[in-house]
Amino acid sequence: MKKIAIVGLGLMGGSFAKAFIEYSDNIVYGYDINEKTIKDARNVDIKIIDNKNEFKNMDLTIICLNPLSIKKFVKENCKYLSNTVMEISGVKNNLYPYIKDLSKKYFFTYKSIHPMAGREVYGFESSLKDLYIDASMIYLDDLDDEEISLFKKIGFNKFVKASPKKHDQMISFTSQLCHVISNAYVLNEKSLNHDGFSAGSLKDMTRVSKIDENLWSELFLLNKDFLIEDIDIMIKNLKDLKSELENDDLERLKTQLKKGNDIRKKMW
Amino acid sequence: MKKIAIVGLGLMGGSFAKAFIEYSDNIVYGYDINEKTIKDARNVDIKIIDNKNEFKNMDLTIICLNPLSIKKFVKENCKYLSNTVMEISGVKNNLYPYIKDLSKKYFFTYKSIHPMAGREVYGFESSLKDLYIDASMIYLDDLDDEEISLFKKIGFNKFVKASPKKHDQMISFTSQLCHVISNAYVLNEKSLNHDGFSAGSLKDMTRVSKIDENLWSELFLLNKDFLIEDIDIMIKNLKDLKSELENDDLERLKTQLKKGNDIRKKMW
Repeated sequence: MKKIAIVGLGLMGGSFAKAFIEYSDNIVYGYDINEKTIKDARNVDIKIIDNKNEFKNMDLTIICLNPLSIKKFVKENCKYLSNTVMEISGVKNNLYPYIKDLSKKYFFTYKSIHPMAGREVYGFESSLKDLYIDASMIYLDDLDDEEISLFKKIGFNKFVKASPKKHDQMISFTSQLCHVISNAYVLNEKSLNHDGFSAGSLKDMTRVSKIDENLWSELFLLNKDFLIEDIDIMIKNLKDLKSELENDDLERLKTQLKKGNDIRKKMW
Repeated sequence: MKKIAIVGLGLMGGSFAKAFIEYSDNIVYGYDINEKTIKDARNVDIKIIDNKNEFKNMDLTIICLNPLSIKKFVKENCKYLSNTVMEISGVKNNLYPYIKDLSKKYFFTYKSIHPMAGREVYGFESSLKDLYIDASMIYLDDLDDEEISLFKKIGFNKFVKASPKKHDQMISFTSQLCHVISNAYVLNEKSLNHDGFSAGSLKDMTRVSKIDENLWSELFLLNKDFLIEDIDIMIKNLKDLKSELENDDLERLKTQLKKGNDIRKKMW
């Protein structure tokens, strides 16, 4: 029975806390600055850390804040942190070397992870004990057997190691670009007149335009080089298709659609 | 008890046939040129039309073919058609006036409809009796109470009238552009390496890149003016976001994301 602290009880942190309570026999502590969240967390048996010295007693601390808030939290509190400290930032290049340095200076073990799960709602009230069922976990530092076992208990069923750069390069495409596209899509003024003219594809296509602009603007800017590359590829592919339409080039259009179809079939 | 003929027992036509058999007391006839489809259709109690003179005895004929095949079928068979003839083409501007003229000349009642439902698989084997549950029906010509009641029986719960032009303008955005975007997305070479790095958003975003290139290249080209307009709007919105990234313009980026978020919340 270990002591696990979750810093930041939002969608991701709240879901970790609820899942560890439900599926493991560890003692779960939470740290948050929002009074309502603290109250709600106490109601589901999360113990609240109100004195930072308590972090010293934790076996594992998982920081579930926005990327820049993670950096700030670690910087301000590194003297309290001990044992293993993880953070779940959605971009890594910007903060990984910085926290790695602090971990060496302050003698805690730093392991960077990124749970591949989410919802288009946020806050503790949206967190779910089952958010991580069947999810993939990206990790930057080797996890030991006990840690893997802990994450498996709450649902993770795939573990993929990546460098900070590889992580950010892939996340730009698998997650950030989806949110960019979805946003660009709904900005067409026809959006508000879709009723009766749409089926499932429009709903799926625009689902992740429902985002917290504070979190996602930060994520986009911290990964802007890769994201701009992926936006450029997207624009190029759209321009190709547009030119096929303009030229009534049925054969090239069919070839492009067939190619996409073949790729998608291999993806899942 | 009426006689309903379905021409073309693919995903859409097969689903109409199965739904009418399941949820109405009408007699359902099918017409198809594929031997296997005919055999499979007989196995689920669809009566097969093998002499075109039988179309004269139908109370309602619904043509469920690709747009250009609908034009061809009506042209070649207008002398056999009687009573009410519907077609479900996904684009209307190109074929509506043409079939309207034939209907006047050959004395059948022409009503153009477009059921807003689909799946990313096709053929009779993919058709479902419940495909139209909770779907919207776009119609170009007034449907009478009996027709509305028939479609309600098989699941349609919304009916929206549109002109051919309005139909094509909206469908370009609500359906065709989704398929274009999804195709352009998967053509990024990172697609085949997503495993472990992706969650639900990539899956949803790329779902409709699984399409029949023959059908969709036809749909795109027959509606290319509206579709090119929508692709241009998409490219413009992507370029705006890209320039916000390039300029580290946090405030404009947040404003754009917030605007998309607000629009999406109003959409559903």
